[in-house]
Amino acid sequence: MTTTRYEQGWRKLMEVDGEGGQRVIDSLGDIAPDLGRYVVEFAFGDIYSRPGLDLKQRQLVTLAALTAQGGCEPQLNVHLNAALNVGLTPAEIVEALMHCIPYTGFPRVLNAVFTAKKVFQERGVL
Amino acid sequence: MTTTRYEQGWRKLMEVDGEGGQRVIDSLGDIAPDLGRYVVEFAFGDIYSRPGLDLKQRQLVTLAALTAQGGCEPQLNVHLNAALNVGLTPAEIVEALMHCIPYTGFPRVLNAVFTAKKVFQERGVL
Amino acid sequence: MTTTRYEQGWRKLMEVDGEGGQRVIDSLGDIAPDLGRYVVEFAFGDIYSRPGLDLKQRQLVTLAALTAQGGCEPQLNVHLNAALNVGLTPAEIVEALMHCIPYTGFPRVLNAVFTAKKVFQERGVL
Amino acid sequence: MTTTRYEQGWRKLMEVDGEGGQRVIDSLGDIAPDLGRYVVEFAFGDIYSRPGLDLKQRQLVTLAALTAQGGCEPQLNVHLNAALNVGLTPAEIVEALMHCIPYTGFPRVLNAVFTAKKVFQERGVL
Amino acid sequence: MTTTRYEQGWRKLMEVDGEGGQRVIDSLGDIAPDLGRYVVEFAFGDIYSRPGLDLKQRQLVTLAALTAQGGCEPQLNVHLNAALNVGLTPAEIVEALMHCIPYTGFPRVLNAVFTAKKVFQERGVL
Amino acid sequence: MTTTRYEQGWRKLMEVDGEGGQRVIDSLGDIAPDLGRYVVEFAFGDIYSRPGLDLKQRQLVTLAALTAQGGCEPQLNVHLNAALNVGLTPAEIVEALMHCIPYTGFPRVLNAVFTAKKVFQERGVL
Repeated sequence: MTTTRYEQGWRKLMEVDGEGGQRVIDSLGDIAPDLGRYVVEFAFGDIYSRPGLDLKQRQLVTLAALTAQGGCEPQLNVHLNAALNVGLTPAEIVEALMHCIPYTGFPRVLNAVFTAKKVFQERGVL
Repeated sequence: MTTTRYEQGWRKLMEVDGEGGQRVIDSLGDIAPDLGRYVVEFAFGDIYSRPGLDLKQRQLVTLAALTAQGGCEPQLNVHLNAALNVGLTPAEIVEALMHCIPYTGFPRVLNAVFTAKKVFQERGVL
Repeated sequence: MTTTRYEQGWRKLMEVDGEGGQRVIDSLGDIAPDLGRYVVEFAFGDIYSRPGLDLKQRQLVTLAALTAQGGCEPQLNVHLNAALNVGLTPAEIVEALMHCIPYTGFPRVLNAVFTAKKVFQERGVL
Repeated sequence: MTTTRYEQGWRKLMEVDGEGGQRVIDSLGDIAPDLGRYVVEFAFGDIYSRPGLDLKQRQLVTLAALTAQGGCEPQLNVHLNAALNVGLTPAEIVEALMHCIPYTGFPRVLNAVFTAKKVFQERGVL
Repeated sequence: MTTTRYEQGWRKLMEVDGEGGQRVIDSLGDIAPDLGRYVVEFAFGDIYSRPGLDLKQRQLVTLAALTAQGGCEPQLNVHLNAALNVGLTPAEIVEALMHCIPYTGFPRVLNAVFTAKKVFQERGVL
Repeated sequence: MTTTRYEQGWRKLMEVDGEGGQRVIDSLGDIAPDLGRYVVEFAFGDIYSRPGLDLKQRQLVTLAALTAQGGCEPQLNVHLNAALNVGLTPAEIVEALMHCIPYTGFPRVLNAVFTAKKVFQERGVL
């Protein structure tokens, strides 16, 4: 059953984060493999696999949570790619980040938008 | 034109936050009326009035940003009401808050869910 | 196996948080029972049940993480009780909170210490 | 010499925070008296006693730091009183809080302004 | 009138942030031009253009808000330059950052001071 | 006596942080020497020199406080070295960081673990 949560989580991680997610898990292999396992089993196997919100909605929530916290640029990079992977357009992503301004102020949003700029350039969608 | 931004923002504030938003603006009247004006003009007249995301999507982003920041329970109260106002179901709202767990940890989500519990009880939707 | 993680987590939750933890899980029953389940299965079944640090060490880490984040007074209440439950003395707990001053500044520590004062009074250890 | 830092700090604490500061120190007496001592010696004896900025400037910095962090309403209460004590007008205080909007967003500023409203009412300056 | 807010904001942005501010607006041009527009119109046209505090006082508040939030080093870079532009001395700036220690702890202040070190070196004032 | 606090603090800083701590103090020499002095006198002379918790316990608290705050990677680098210096094993350190997941979410812990990976590689303990 742990295997099932892991397998379920891995499929979801691949669907959402793709290569960027796999790279994070791989880079944890020699220092904290169980941390990678919990990302797969809990974040993706338990949470992302729930019904109730579709993947576009989940990425809107994720982008806002990461933007608001600050200091999560590496995770924003992964999840900006994920947002594109699940079908949000660059314009929708930028709109979601800009919607955070009244709640987080400009600095958090500027940091997120400049991270998005790099991701969009790498993906050739800017 | 300032009038127009204010009028546009006020209509949007009423549509989204309703009474809860009006109470915030009113309570600022004797200490910082311009703060209330900026909430109306900038947050609602400029940001909420943009196309690109619908009001349900904007409330998902708002709930996540407020949950992730912490210490925003009064604003969560207003925007949990707003989320219901624009048509998100209680189940979708709880799902959005739970989606934040991997990004914010349990304490921020517990605080948000207990705020939601009060709002849902007041609205008779729990 | 999910049952086993839940059972393992529940025993650990009872051992660490006791009644305070049970109250949190119970109060989630009508709004977000799965959130309570994840606290049991993931936080206590997966993380707290790991070897490598004993429960006193885990509570030192927990208190510091909650103090540093801010806005987690309800969770600090539960985990200050937990710290006493696993055998940390009131003096050790206060020392751990004071050790945070250089890292978090005084306000976060003052909020935590005043929460500790209430808990210690309720437990009759002040 | 510790006595000197303490004495210097106590005079500065009385000058800046007045009764509100004394109440905080007193309330720490039975749980963490050394925490109170460090507030006096370090925050007020070392930092507030430095030349280079006057007390009005220091309170502007303090109010912004507390507003931006969030969850520091009890400390904001003390330091909004302090801001009045050192000669900032209610209008200057509100202006400083409103200046934070672009950097922190509206929720942090709303929490601070509503705390200011209570303080100004208690002080009869609203 | 929107034009007027923009023009007013642009003049203020040039007066305060100078080139560093212009670079931020320019770099948003291809991904989120409206974000740049809001920085000009709202942050500088509305907020910075208000009476009630002079520009030195506003930069003290800005530096404290950015230091306290953490993760805002790019914005601190711009506003440390701005602080010099409006006439604060390097010593006053460092003093303001050090005044934050009791409220934010050492790490946030160290990050801000090391950012100041780079800015002061670039400006030839260290 | 100030001398004594400084001397006491310096010895403790050397014992705990070693070279990494000295480098921080040195790099403050030309911009904010008093900031370095307060780190030595207050953080190490006052706080770290207290009885009540041993140095391993203090580093567990430190790592959690820095991880939870976010944006403190430079300070985590110093204190991950310190954690090794006072005798915590790499496995215990990783365990302490992973224990933060339920309280801070994955992004803060991932940032801390990747900082630990660099430190452990430099120290040849990975």
